[in-house]
Amino acid sequence: MQSNIPAIISYQPIGIIHTSFSNIGGMPIQPVGADKIRGTVEIFQGYAKGLKDLDGFSHIILIYHFHQAQSAKLIVTPFLDTLPHGVFSTRAPSRPNPVGLSVVRLLKIEQNILHIENVDILNDTPLLDLKPYVPEFDQHQGERIGWLKEAKGRVRNKKSDDRFI
Amino acid sequence: MQSNIPAIISYQPIGIIHTSFSNIGGMPIQPVGADKIRGTVEIFQGYAKGLKDLDGFSHIILIYHFHQAQSAKLIVTPFLDTLPHGVFSTRAPSRPNPVGLSVVRLLKIEQNILHIENVDILNDTPLLDLKPYVPEFDQHQGERIGWLKEAKGRVRNKKSDDRFI
Repeated sequence: MQSNIPAIISYQPIGIIHTSFSNIGGMPIQPVGADKIRGTVEIFQGYAKGLKDLDGFSHIILIYHFHQAQSAKLIVTPFLDTLPHGVFSTRAPSRPNPVGLSVVRLLKIEQNILHIENVDILNDTPLLDLKPYVPEFDQHQGERIGWLKEAKGRVRNKKSDDRFI
Repeated sequence: MQSNIPAIISYQPIGIIHTSFSNIGGMPIQPVGADKIRGTVEIFQGYAKGLKDLDGFSHIILIYHFHQAQSAKLIVTPFLDTLPHGVFSTRAPSRPNPVGLSVVRLLKIEQNILHIENVDILNDTPLLDLKPYVPEFDQHQGERIGWLKEAKGRVRNKKSDDRFI
């Protein structure tokens, strides 16, 4: 490790994600499987000023902490497969740094509360950052999807279980 | 703030991003403006096992720490506009938690070194996580892009300056 790289990077949550999913078992595993499921994001008051003009965007990127992922594993068998893969080739939550990423539809903003749709996130998840989703920045060809090619199509109906708790 | 939310969330970098951009001034401001620019990601040895099967993916998501963003601002004037906006409606680096997100093309993996293309990232950036880019998960309609509608098209040629240092 190079000496100019910090050993620890610390963040303070800027808000909390409220959903109807209190347990990881049975959750949709991606927003594409969470069609029309609603939730809210509560931005803590000290950060609410930063929401100005976000209401112009139809979709937002949520970056959050997988607070219930208990232990990091480098090799995992993801929900969508029966074979083990390197954790960085999966979206499994049990990562060395358990950072989650979801793009959700933004329905409306009321003061510091964001009403969102297509939510695949556990209740009480700490929010680290949110960004506007911009197709020109965020859409890529992605013509090769490795082991997921076989699993494609399964994601809409597949639910999580407790393997990453 | 609810009492069950941690006050601090700490991560350890899993690697370091090497690019030719040693200063924030003059950098491309999104991968779409960094066409064909190459770099490498060095994954620290302890995490290299987690790269298994990542080579099957053409694009990867890098989540990293904007290590040169000096101070958080809630209202910013982004590179693409002359008007101030809430920081969460922009992709500016001076965020309360300076977490960066880029999707890059993965050219090849040699042991713990990832060769990547379309890189809009500063040299020596600490890497927090990497995930496979999966169009089925990651492509969204994004039919409304707020203030960026006016700025659309400018991003390919626009370079950064030092306003967020």
